[in-house]
Amino acid sequence: MQQAVDSISIATRGQGLYEATRDLRAFVAGSGISTGLVTIFVRHTSCSLLIQENADPDVQIDLQGFFRRLVPEGMDWLVHTTEGPDDMPAHIKAALTQTSIGIPVTEGRPVLGTWQGLFLFEHRTRPHRRELVFHIIGD
Amino acid sequence: MQQAVDSISIATRGQGLYEATRDLRAFVAGSGISTGLVTIFVRHTSCSLLIQENADPDVQIDLQGFFRRLVPEGMDWLVHTTEGPDDMPAHIKAALTQTSIGIPVTEGRPVLGTWQGLFLFEHRTRPHRRELVFHIIGD
Amino acid sequence: MQQAVDSISIATRGQGLYEATRDLRAFVAGSGISTGLVTIFVRHTSCSLLIQENADPDVQIDLQGFFRRLVPEGMDWLVHTTEGPDDMPAHIKAALTQTSIGIPVTEGRPVLGTWQGLFLFEHRTRPHRRELVFHIIGD
Repeated sequence: MQQAVDSISIATRGQGLYEATRDLRAFVAGSGISTGLVTIFVRHTSCSLLIQENADPDVQIDLQGFFRRLVPEGMDWLVHTTEGPDDMPAHIKAALTQTSIGIPVTEGRPVLGTWQGLFLFEHRTRPHRRELVFHIIGD
Repeated sequence: MQQAVDSISIATRGQGLYEATRDLRAFVAGSGISTGLVTIFVRHTSCSLLIQENADPDVQIDLQGFFRRLVPEGMDWLVHTTEGPDDMPAHIKAALTQTSIGIPVTEGRPVLGTWQGLFLFEHRTRPHRRELVFHIIGD
Repeated sequence: MQQAVDSISIATRGQGLYEATRDLRAFVAGSGISTGLVTIFVRHTSCSLLIQENADPDVQIDLQGFFRRLVPEGMDWLVHTTEGPDDMPAHIKAALTQTSIGIPVTEGRPVLGTWQGLFLFEHRTRPHRRELVFHIIGD
């Protein structure tokens, strides 16, 4: 049984989904582990993780459209407004999605379905550097 | 330290919650692992996983009622509509719930609470075959 | 490779966020594991887990404000109402957040970002005792 940890940095350019599936696959392959569990963790509270369809980019547009409507800027009851109108909505969107995801690994690959991709979901408007930590354990 | 991986297939017959607690318990028991971590992963983007009350079936009815109201069919701003009116709402509902869940294992059993059950949450209308992957690691 | 499991009990006094970061750090440090994966699991279906900002308490106020508005008491279509007006909304809020969270561990600490804290998110009005299970595996 062995394990490996690494982190990657993603430079975001505004709200949207940034695919990290290739980075994940490279980390798993590089670990030399054939069977195990890989975990992805994002070290921030105004962006999040999502496994979603990576075939039709319209899915990503609609996902953003839904979250923008569900958690709009300008809700007048918000108290935490000092970091900009997009900050508290970003925390809420992060709370509604995920901070960590675990995926079984077989034959040296995460068992993602045919249409599943791993995405960083950026909820802030301005550019940010986002750190994702990968951990894998197995044989 | 050892590990095991297996997958099960669930045939869904429309939107709803399909309990998989028994399959999970059987997988954990069959692994021979007494203390460890079990992870459940679903390989699709229009259904998801949920740990929820399995005592009163009305809870499941209300959970579906809420998600149907929060993410209704027919939102006229959607772009991804070619796979049917239930497809994009299904992706959104999946994004709002979980794709993977990790549960500690002690005494050969997942530490689910008294009222907790593991459910596959199907968001599509037509029948589908859904694959869940189980991974366990421990002693 | 080794592992450890422990549980803590949190006495909640109504709806709100209860920070458990210190308990998590103590568990990881006490395990003697330097590199690995720690998992937090909550054994209930009307409270949940959240990793969110622990710097400005207003963020916690707004998170609660959002979920209270998104899932209000008194939705007249609910069927499961026998356990009180806050019970079914609590299940729904739990379904929208997390029951388990995995965090990589390096140098004997969970890799939480600077502003990230681990919270128990209580959705019920009356006091409850809530059990969180911690599991860690690694070297």
